[in-house]
Amino acid sequence: MEFIKSKENKLYKTIKKLKTRKYREKEKLFIAEGQKFLDFKETPWAMLLKEGDNRYIEKAEGFTCPKYILSEALFNELSSQENSQGILLIYSMCESSIETIGHNIVVLDRIQDPGNLGTIIRVADAAGYRDIILLKGSVDVYNEKTVRSSMGSLFNMNFIYMEEEEVIKFIDQENYKSTVTALREDAIPYTDIIPGSKNAIIFGNEGQGVSERIIESSHSKVIIPIYGLAESLNVAVAAGIVLYKFRELLI
Amino acid sequence: MEFIKSKENKLYKTIKKLKTRKYREKEKLFIAEGQKFLDFKETPWAMLLKEGDNRYIEKAEGFTCPKYILSEALFNELSSQENSQGILLIYSMCESSIETIGHNIVVLDRIQDPGNLGTIIRVADAAGYRDIILLKGSVDVYNEKTVRSSMGSLFNMNFIYMEEEEVIKFIDQENYKSTVTALREDAIPYTDIIPGSKNAIIFGNEGQGVSERIIESSHSKVIIPIYGLAESLNVAVAAGIVLYKFRELLI
Repeated sequence: MEFIKSKENKLYKTIKKLKTRKYREKEKLFIAEGQKFLDFKETPWAMLLKEGDNRYIEKAEGFTCPKYILSEALFNELSSQENSQGILLIYSMCESSIETIGHNIVVLDRIQDPGNLGTIIRVADAAGYRDIILLKGSVDVYNEKTVRSSMGSLFNMNFIYMEEEEVIKFIDQENYKSTVTALREDAIPYTDIIPGSKNAIIFGNEGQGVSERIIESSHSKVIIPIYGLAESLNVAVAAGIVLYKFRELLI
Repeated sequence: MEFIKSKENKLYKTIKKLKTRKYREKEKLFIAEGQKFLDFKETPWAMLLKEGDNRYIEKAEGFTCPKYILSEALFNELSSQENSQGILLIYSMCESSIETIGHNIVVLDRIQDPGNLGTIIRVADAAGYRDIILLKGSVDVYNEKTVRSSMGSLFNMNFIYMEEEEVIKFIDQENYKSTVTALREDAIPYTDIIPGSKNAIIFGNEGQGVSERIIESSHSKVIIPIYGLAESLNVAVAAGIVLYKFRELLI
């Protein structure tokens, strides 16, 4: 294993830059921190261990990717966790494909919080969905917090990027029934959902919800009723309730 | 409005100490950060504004609690957000009462993540529950992150603290039907839940789930089936799905 201690090291400099979305998109690489990533099948592009921390050396041996040991100072520069586990994995971005898109898909309209996005990816995976269309203005799938809160489900999904008008056209042309969650009076309770043979299930921005333009173009508007005093639900929780309700009805 | 600029100011020192659970419990006060708390009905114990930030001065006028302006340096010491909105509210802890406990209650067994706890409080409120029993080892309800992610629902709930054996005895004596979410083979799908006339719905620690002792003593074990490759669900998402399923069945 190569030992890296200089800030001028080329690999270190590359990885440091992966903290920005722009550079991640250029290099098609992203950082995943923590030992739990050792449990996922995906093979990393590289593995970085912290000098003097031998907890994962043995487990690391099982991986064929290049491995590096970083000086404590350099490792800490790259780590984004307070109590780091001394292991960083670098992965290539998932390939995405519109050709293989399935009959039940998730559409996310400008989700802002990286933790929410990761949690939605995790529950979409759990509920048996494979395809997520992300609209322009969404937080990056490869943000370190999103990667962490997706708990590996990131590797199981097909991400497709579209603009608002594009997704409206796509849903129409491909004959999806679109269902949007909206806090509106004319929305039906989620328990009354009637799935189509193909479904696009749409969730929106934490503050503003789904855009007016998309709501208006949707086939069905559903609401999760509020029985207490809360004003609204967390978007990842709402996605969990609606995606599992569809799953119940689709089986 | 009093202007505070000295670190030796008594009020400043009191509030600074509210960052620790021990002191919060002693003073029965907690910090809530951000303008959204101005929208909740609860009257704060005190309001702190940041010097030079006049965004909320007008709105603050409508509140009868004592208000203070803090120097930028002192304010930043107390703020826990990167992009602070220049407003901190201090509240008295909610009163809790076992006497008024309802027929459908939530039990949380050692939830660790403050964001998860806040999100569970929010969805429990939304789904019409009022009582949450927190078992020993749970993260603090008044942790700043919990307060923030509860989005004000914290003020609507009745929190009761118990030890493991206590809650088992309580459920038994008060004739609750206890339902525990567990990733176990003998668990039934959540869609087959049969509510009792009184229900205690139990969720557990992020890593370990609900304790063996509580699972064994429960009347019903339910599972949210995983249709994809994810190993498990985020506990707040799982709570959302199960609490809303109960609500559907209870109506």
